[in-house]
Amino acid sequence: MIELKKPNVVILGAGYGGLMTAVRLQKFVGVNEANITLVNKNNYHYETTWLHEASAGTLHHDRVRYPIADVIDRSKVQFVQDTVVKVVPQEKRVILQNGELTYDYLVIALGFESETFGIKGLKEYAFSIANVNAARQIREHIEYQFATYHTEEEKRDERLTIVVGGAGFTGIEFLGELANRIPELCREYDVDPKKVRIICVEAAPTALPGFDPELVEYAVSLLERKGVEFKIGTAIKECTPEGIVVAKGDEVEEIKAGTVVWAAGVRGSYVIDESGFEAMRGRVKVDPFLRAPGYDNVFIVGDCSLMINEETNRPYPPTAQIAMQQGELCAKNLAVLIREQGELQPFKPDIKGTVCSLGHDDAIGVVFGKKMWGAKASFMKKMVDNRALYLIGGPSLVMKKGKFKFF
Amino acid sequence: MIELKKPNVVILGAGYGGLMTAVRLQKFVGVNEANITLVNKNNYHYETTWLHEASAGTLHHDRVRYPIADVIDRSKVQFVQDTVVKVVPQEKRVILQNGELTYDYLVIALGFESETFGIKGLKEYAFSIANVNAARQIREHIEYQFATYHTEEEKRDERLTIVVGGAGFTGIEFLGELANRIPELCREYDVDPKKVRIICVEAAPTALPGFDPELVEYAVSLLERKGVEFKIGTAIKECTPEGIVVAKGDEVEEIKAGTVVWAAGVRGSYVIDESGFEAMRGRVKVDPFLRAPGYDNVFIVGDCSLMINEETNRPYPPTAQIAMQQGELCAKNLAVLIREQGELQPFKPDIKGTVCSLGHDDAIGVVFGKKMWGAKASFMKKMVDNRALYLIGGPSLVMKKGKFKFF
Ligand SMILES: Cc1cc2nc3c(=O)[nH]c(=O)nc-3n(C[C@H](O)[C@H](O)[C@H](O)COP(=O)(O)OP(=O)(O)OC[C@H]3O[C@@H](n4cnc5c(N)ncnc54)[C@H](O)[C@@H]3O)c2cc1C
Ligand SMILES: Cc1cc2nc3c(=O)[nH]c(=O)nc-3n(C[C@H](O)[C@H](O)[C@H](O)COP(=O)(O)OP(=O)(O)OC[C@H]3O[C@@H](n4cnc5c(N)ncnc54)[C@H](O)[C@@H]3O)c2cc1C
Repeated sequence: MIELKKPNVVILGAGYGGLMTAVRLQKFVGVNEANITLVNKNNYHYETTWLHEASAGTLHHDRVRYPIADVIDRSKVQFVQDTVVKVVPQEKRVILQNGELTYDYLVIALGFESETFGIKGLKEYAFSIANVNAARQIREHIEYQFATYHTEEEKRDERLTIVVGGAGFTGIEFLGELANRIPELCREYDVDPKKVRIICVEAAPTALPGFDPELVEYAVSLLERKGVEFKIGTAIKECTPEGIVVAKGDEVEEIKAGTVVWAAGVRGSYVIDESGFEAMRGRVKVDPFLRAPGYDNVFIVGDCSLMINEETNRPYPPTAQIAMQQGELCAKNLAVLIREQGELQPFKPDIKGTVCSLGHDDAIGVVFGKKMWGAKASFMKKMVDNRALYLIGGPSLVMKKGKFKFF
Repeated sequence: MIELKKPNVVILGAGYGGLMTAVRLQKFVGVNEANITLVNKNNYHYETTWLHEASAGTLHHDRVRYPIADVIDRSKVQFVQDTVVKVVPQEKRVILQNGELTYDYLVIALGFESETFGIKGLKEYAFSIANVNAARQIREHIEYQFATYHTEEEKRDERLTIVVGGAGFTGIEFLGELANRIPELCREYDVDPKKVRIICVEAAPTALPGFDPELVEYAVSLLERKGVEFKIGTAIKECTPEGIVVAKGDEVEEIKAGTVVWAAGVRGSYVIDESGFEAMRGRVKVDPFLRAPGYDNVFIVGDCSLMINEETNRPYPPTAQIAMQQGELCAKNLAVLIREQGELQPFKPDIKGTVCSLGHDDAIGVVFGKKMWGAKASFMKKMVDNRALYLIGGPSLVMKKGKFKFF
């Protein structure tokens, strides 16, 4: 009897891209067709797109994550909890912190990291909304500043100043949560709300660059009404233990702040660089089948990949929406390769729209080409959030983890 | 028509002693008999004897406090929210941060502060369970250490080490809460409980010096089973940003710890020293009528006063029990003076017993001379807690703020 060698499929990362690849692939192939291994740092998946809520403290981090075991089929997918150190694509090997794996096909879906563009002090003194660990540290850091305020003989109002670097998507969503959270914190720690400052610093000439100007105006004025100060066209020059230094043209200003959150830059995983792939800020320009140049058996999905939008001649922004679509296609193509039957399909993103939340009760967005704001956009945002759960874990995961407080 | 001059009674501090004085006095005298003014830093009273729970995070600080307005009769007692800077007894004046008061009769009930006995670094780097502000800062500080643990590349286990200085009453009660809280924190922040250390350092040759040895043994072994390490007969020599230095005989040891809570020393208010009263560590040896030597119109109750127990020839320990009894007597004596009728009564403490909690579900104690431990002592402790509410605010305050989770 001849044992047919089953190919080893290794998936790195259980974020939107990697987990989608795994759950689709486990449907497409049978137990005897492939060995599928999923590697992830934690034994849980988290909703990256909800991390700004956990960071502000408006949603508990346990609401933002679920066990990977809940959605994978153990008979088909082997789960390894470990940290990926690097890939050796020439030898088809993956080095983990506590071991090593070999593969026939590899999917890299290690997501994003914070990019500080070499701005002095940001790495050391600013927080970034990067994962569950970071999110709950931000929440606790802010609470600690409030808790400390009244214990000091000389009150230092700057403890109650929170700087958010960047008025992009993540910055604005975080500001929306913060603006709702601050009144709660003031009550909790007997702090006068007038003492609290939330300052958003953005180097570009507008908040949410690229978004519809009318919607941007809606978002900015709503946040301003809730007390957020915007410093637009202003760049962070340095971050120190005391706060930040900013510049607008020639004018340099120091802003003292107990908390600085950097939300203005992401890059692909450092594992991409470590592994020697040709990349720009950890993002590999993949071929239409999502493969790394030079390696037919290495797929890259999600924020570690880069694809050019031919209409605008600019890269698609890294989004969960695209990561999931890539995961789905990647699983299909892997099934083709495993069975040696059918043809590889190229990736075609299907952008349904973009919704930016402004707290639990408001949002702005463009969905299927239609502009919306207020309660309607907020409802749509929750539907988008629930859809991600649905695509990966089906209706039962939506029931367990979904967002249903619509009003 | 002759306006009779109503005497000004000023009460400083709305802790157990001061608030008890105020609520009893408002019953004893009519609206036209005296002007009563109560001064306190905050507009709320807190249960000092429950602060170890708020500090550990096992009871929310809002459960530990209530508005002073809820228990005083506004038609008789004027409430001033301000901080007392000093008393000028020669001129019958009280200097407040934002004003000044004159009095005919004064009650000083400003309670305790932390005493660090000059041990290097304790003031700067250790916390103390002193009031609501301090308690919630301790809670948040510990949470922040747990929240930070997983965000650091190199895990620093000492973040998860908590040192409690002192195995007296307050130290042991705090350890009981901590031991119950740690498993919750480990779950909240995905921390392995084996990494957490709770270390109690006590210079005396036993925990709870003066308490029944059998009960001490019960308490220590219960806490040890829950993971507390005791270093008895060991003195804290220094506190640093990294932890503490201790010595047992000639052996010196450094213990790295993210959190140090000093629970081994209290003294009376610094206002006592500022005002030039003769005192030992802010405690004034009062006469049998609770008056400061040399000033017939100045009464001192609670932790700022000192009385000798003639049976043991040692001072009574500062307790809420005594502070409340003193407040009650002080109000009676003030009524005598205001009406110029009757005779002053000397203070005779009526010690009903002492119960030391070991978390919400266990305790040790001696009540009416009877030793008790376990569920029975724990029940008794909650009754003692409710009794303080009852004495100051009657049954309605017990209903609002009482402890009824008995099992
Ligand atoms: C606050 C915020 C809000 C956002 N909102 C939206 C939105 O509304 N809509 C939208 O489409 N996009 C949004 N995005 C962008 C979106 O979250 C990302 O594009 C998406 O998460 C990328 O998916 P991914 O699968 O590539 O990586 P991720 O979701 O980041 O997952 C990567 C996974 O890999 C694991 N991992 C990383 N490194 C290692 C390692 N070395 N070893 C082992 N495991 C590792 C991580 O633990 C994680 O589980 C938002 C981003 C942020 C930060
Ligand atoms: C954790 C812990 C547990 C304890 N457990 C027990 C127990 O189980 N049983 C027991 O009998 N005793 C216990 N004690 C001791 C007891 O709490 C004190 O003896 C008691 O609080 C003293 O009462 P007091 O009225 O003197 O002062 P406090 O209750 O301390 O009240 C002083 C008041 O004065 C205010 N104040 C202070 N300074 C100023 C200022 N400069 N200006 C204006 N206002 C000011 C404060 O805000 C406070 O409201 C415990 C103590 C601690 C710390």
